[in-house]
Amino acid sequence: MSIRVPQGYVLAGVHCRIKRDPQKQDFTLVMSEAPAAAAGVYTQNLVCAAPVQLDRSRTPSEKIRCVAICSGVANACTGQRGLEDAERMARLAAQACGAKEDEALVLSTGVIGAFLPMDKIEQGICAAAVKLGRSEACFLSAARGMLTTDTVHKIAGRAVTVAGREYLIAGMAKGAAMMGPNMATMLALIFTDAPLDPATAQTVLHRATDDSFNCISVDGHVSTNDTVLFLANGAAGGEKLSGNDLETFQAAFTEVCIDLARSIPADGEGATHLITLEVSGCKDRDTALQIAKTVANSPLVKTAVSGADPNWGRIVSACGYAGVPLDPAGICLKLNGFPLYENGAPVDFDAHAVSHSIRDNHDTLIQLSFKEGTTSRRFWTTDLTAEYVRLNADYHT
Amino acid sequence: MSIRVPQGYVLAGVHCRIKRDPQKQDFTLVMSEAPAAAAGVYTQNLVCAAPVQLDRSRTPSEKIRCVAICSGVANACTGQRGLEDAERMARLAAQACGAKEDEALVLSTGVIGAFLPMDKIEQGICAAAVKLGRSEACFLSAARGMLTTDTVHKIAGRAVTVAGREYLIAGMAKGAAMMGPNMATMLALIFTDAPLDPATAQTVLHRATDDSFNCISVDGHVSTNDTVLFLANGAAGGEKLSGNDLETFQAAFTEVCIDLARSIPADGEGATHLITLEVSGCKDRDTALQIAKTVANSPLVKTAVSGADPNWGRIVSACGYAGVPLDPAGICLKLNGFPLYENGAPVDFDAHAVSHSIRDNHDTLIQLSFKEGTTSRRFWTTDLTAEYVRLNADYHT
Repeated sequence: MSIRVPQGYVLAGVHCRIKRDPQKQDFTLVMSEAPAAAAGVYTQNLVCAAPVQLDRSRTPSEKIRCVAICSGVANACTGQRGLEDAERMARLAAQACGAKEDEALVLSTGVIGAFLPMDKIEQGICAAAVKLGRSEACFLSAARGMLTTDTVHKIAGRAVTVAGREYLIAGMAKGAAMMGPNMATMLALIFTDAPLDPATAQTVLHRATDDSFNCISVDGHVSTNDTVLFLANGAAGGEKLSGNDLETFQAAFTEVCIDLARSIPADGEGATHLITLEVSGCKDRDTALQIAKTVANSPLVKTAVSGADPNWGRIVSACGYAGVPLDPAGICLKLNGFPLYENGAPVDFDAHAVSHSIRDNHDTLIQLSFKEGTTSRRFWTTDLTAEYVRLNADYHT
Repeated sequence: MSIRVPQGYVLAGVHCRIKRDPQKQDFTLVMSEAPAAAAGVYTQNLVCAAPVQLDRSRTPSEKIRCVAICSGVANACTGQRGLEDAERMARLAAQACGAKEDEALVLSTGVIGAFLPMDKIEQGICAAAVKLGRSEACFLSAARGMLTTDTVHKIAGRAVTVAGREYLIAGMAKGAAMMGPNMATMLALIFTDAPLDPATAQTVLHRATDDSFNCISVDGHVSTNDTVLFLANGAAGGEKLSGNDLETFQAAFTEVCIDLARSIPADGEGATHLITLEVSGCKDRDTALQIAKTVANSPLVKTAVSGADPNWGRIVSACGYAGVPLDPAGICLKLNGFPLYENGAPVDFDAHAVSHSIRDNHDTLIQLSFKEGTTSRRFWTTDLTAEYVRLNADYHT
């Protein structure tokens, strides 16, 4: 997959010795040549990391010039010193980019409870500043600089033509579990050369997040650092987007977010399956999401998929404890297209065929329908394997 | 542990070929010689099994004479035929005990979606009826007749002296996961020879359940069949309990329920640790329970314990997404007595010593305190091991 970097951005990923392996980038700098509208959505965890607190206070903004990202240390549960470190990291990054202190945002991911190694961060900022560029290699090393236990980088992009003008959207994300082995988090940065005002950027981001990053899980543990940032610098020209043009842009933007979001459970720790849940016939979006989340986070549903077991009882019974009103007699379930349960009663099915379809495919599709309304929603999660347990039990602080 | 059977009860457990292994009991009959006050608490799952629906309609009651229990088939998700089977099982059990149809309760546990093998159940009732007795052997085989994937039987008892008279309380439970390999559930039956009216019995059971069976988890998957039944036949004589006498009885009764409840995660599928969570300084009981549940059900907390890793970041961050208001700066955490986190900040500790204390003990104690109020609560759960995943992934329907 080749991603085109939107106009007016330069970026770089470097190794600054936070991670032990010198082959692994651990610091990323992204700079917008002109001030960009910036929006952010953040973890709902009350125990939230210093960079989350800082960025939350600075977005939405109309003048963000750079984002500095370090991986290996989350700067979470670090109190006042952690906040001061985050501010200093932003200040140094801003200086390196010729910007003002409050024109920088920061992201951190990694071990909870450790302080940022500020000497290494400072070296990282200097090293990255001299490598900033627009090439695909720059984009890829920047995407790698935010990874922790991820086995692959997560990138996505779209070109969208609005009012005869082409705009580019590019994004990068990290995350292999909602929380990895003592690591925190899901991070994403999406940037575009389209012109958007800050309030619109925030709305666009919220709408997209609601159907993408808010619809994934690996283990259901909400991290302290989850952040999605969105920059729009307008470098491709044109008027600020609104009306139908904005809707066209929104659609492409949401696709980028869904691509990035799906890539996280697809790389879930120890996972052997990416599970897509399609929930339909619900009263409203919240209800649909609640059912999807409850099914997605059941260890018994997850182990059934990793064991290629068409164990519909686990799926149907998870719906029943989602905490939302529903008529059990209206539940229908298909697994990889095979009907297993219809209108509250089991259906005869070929268990071997269904089991093979699970075993032979990396993607598993669970479709649940109800008789409560007309709302549908999609959600993505992983299966649960002994390897996940090993990864998270064998790691030692 | 020796349990004395309360007066006026006879019971038996037999093998009636629901389970393949002829050495394993799969049918239990408990009879009260006189009509007993009966109370029940049931799963909150909207997808609930036929026996749950039947018992719910018959409790509280002042005239229950017998309880019939089969293990191996849950009679859940079985529609109208399932309800008719449950009614027939109750009717046959009542006949065998010389009681009326509506004086019997039924419990089932095992595979979801399969119909009860009524011919075997009928044979089980006949075989059990002729073996009914008050000996400890009878009690133990009855306790075994309700097990599924459990590795040990779960029993508890107390003698309590109220107003100069001794009353006995005995209980049996099953459950190795909230839901085992395609099995459902946690079941318990507690019976006493103390005199209680049905409304009081229901209140006593609710109060005890709230501090016992509602405070345990293995994998957080709420089953379709969870049921706790309580019979009080008054065979030991005396007036109906009330006032201080009732409180004395309640205390002993709650102890029996806690013993039984703890024994379930202690035998959790694949578990190597029983984790006790003590949550204090909360605003109210619901808040304390919500925090405890969120920490208990985090796969990352569970794997940290199985890996003997004093990974306090996982525990503290789980508090933050419990969905209840709390001040992160007021959080304190002790693990097996070692302070790890105090007033929102990490504490220096000997990681090796804490790790050894986890590894060397089957019981792990996590103490969390907050600055929100004065309410405390206890909760019990298991760690998460690769063996749990294997048990639940390698099972095939």
